[in-house]
Amino acid sequence: MGHSFLEESLSVLERTPAVLDSLLRGLPEGWTAADEGPGTWSPYVVVGHLIHLEKTDWMVRLGIILEHGAARPFDPVDREAQMRLGGERDLGEMLDEFARLRRENLARLRALELGEDELAREGRHPGLGVVTARQLLATWTAHDMAHLVQVGRVMAKRYRDEVGPWAQYLSVMN
Amino acid sequence: MGHSFLEESLSVLERTPAVLDSLLRGLPEGWTAADEGPGTWSPYVVVGHLIHLEKTDWMVRLGIILEHGAARPFDPVDREAQMRLGGERDLGEMLDEFARLRRENLARLRALELGEDELAREGRHPGLGVVTARQLLATWTAHDMAHLVQVGRVMAKRYRDEVGPWAQYLSVMN
Repeated sequence: MGHSFLEESLSVLERTPAVLDSLLRGLPEGWTAADEGPGTWSPYVVVGHLIHLEKTDWMVRLGIILEHGAARPFDPVDREAQMRLGGERDLGEMLDEFARLRRENLARLRALELGEDELAREGRHPGLGVVTARQLLATWTAHDMAHLVQVGRVMAKRYRDEVGPWAQYLSVMN
Repeated sequence: MGHSFLEESLSVLERTPAVLDSLLRGLPEGWTAADEGPGTWSPYVVVGHLIHLEKTDWMVRLGIILEHGAARPFDPVDREAQMRLGGERDLGEMLDEFARLRRENLARLRALELGEDELAREGRHPGLGVVTARQLLATWTAHDMAHLVQVGRVMAKRYRDEVGPWAQYLSVMN
């Protein structure tokens, strides 16, 4: 039957800091500060967002589910917090912080030794209503990949004009 | 003025093998063999495709441009070659081969010490017509990012059902 849902999810969650580190550390600012237009996120901003959510979202919400169930709604998460960072912090330091926070969060998650019963526990999302611990962990995992997609897309689109006629073969440019 | 076009491109091209290695090496097959339906590519297939193009596309075409200009069209590239691999090769070996081929190709590219004149040299694409060496190198770079987007998207979508109501917040699922 292969790996459990929890192990499959952890296998992605534990890799994300190294993936972003490999891609972004030391990369020229032309890439890390690129975005898709006003109000959109650069790779730099994405890393700030991931740090913010390690502190305020995933494991915090899992704790609320395990302690209170659906009786106590999650606190809303500020999805724009990192936009106010202003780009003062060094990206290398931010990648270090993200890696540390993720490592600590996954150590706490592993220590909980969640079984099927705990994964089925319900919580209450302020906008989405009833969700389960398993759905929360799946979303944490998919959210990493969604932002990897975003970073790759922003970087590809930086070269939209540079690729000339090849743009028609690269659907990511559209 | 920051980095030159060539240095900016190399900074991405040289990172891609480590990015894919960080993401895919040792990952459960449920992730590396996942795809988006019949005829679509898994992360495993994407790595095979990138290997094939290191051997047959980018530096080969650059060589044709520098030697023959637009007088000699590029040979067509088989974009489905990796679909016939059949999944027999170990993904770790494939990641090793991709890293080695890319390292060798970038060493050759650096040794050419291309200046603005060489980057402006024209070649002839069998489908797209006249293109430049600079556009070819930009496409190589953007193509890496396009496939990183694809890998992240395939992996995120594997959890489309698992995330439950959160799917509506994750545009990558659609």
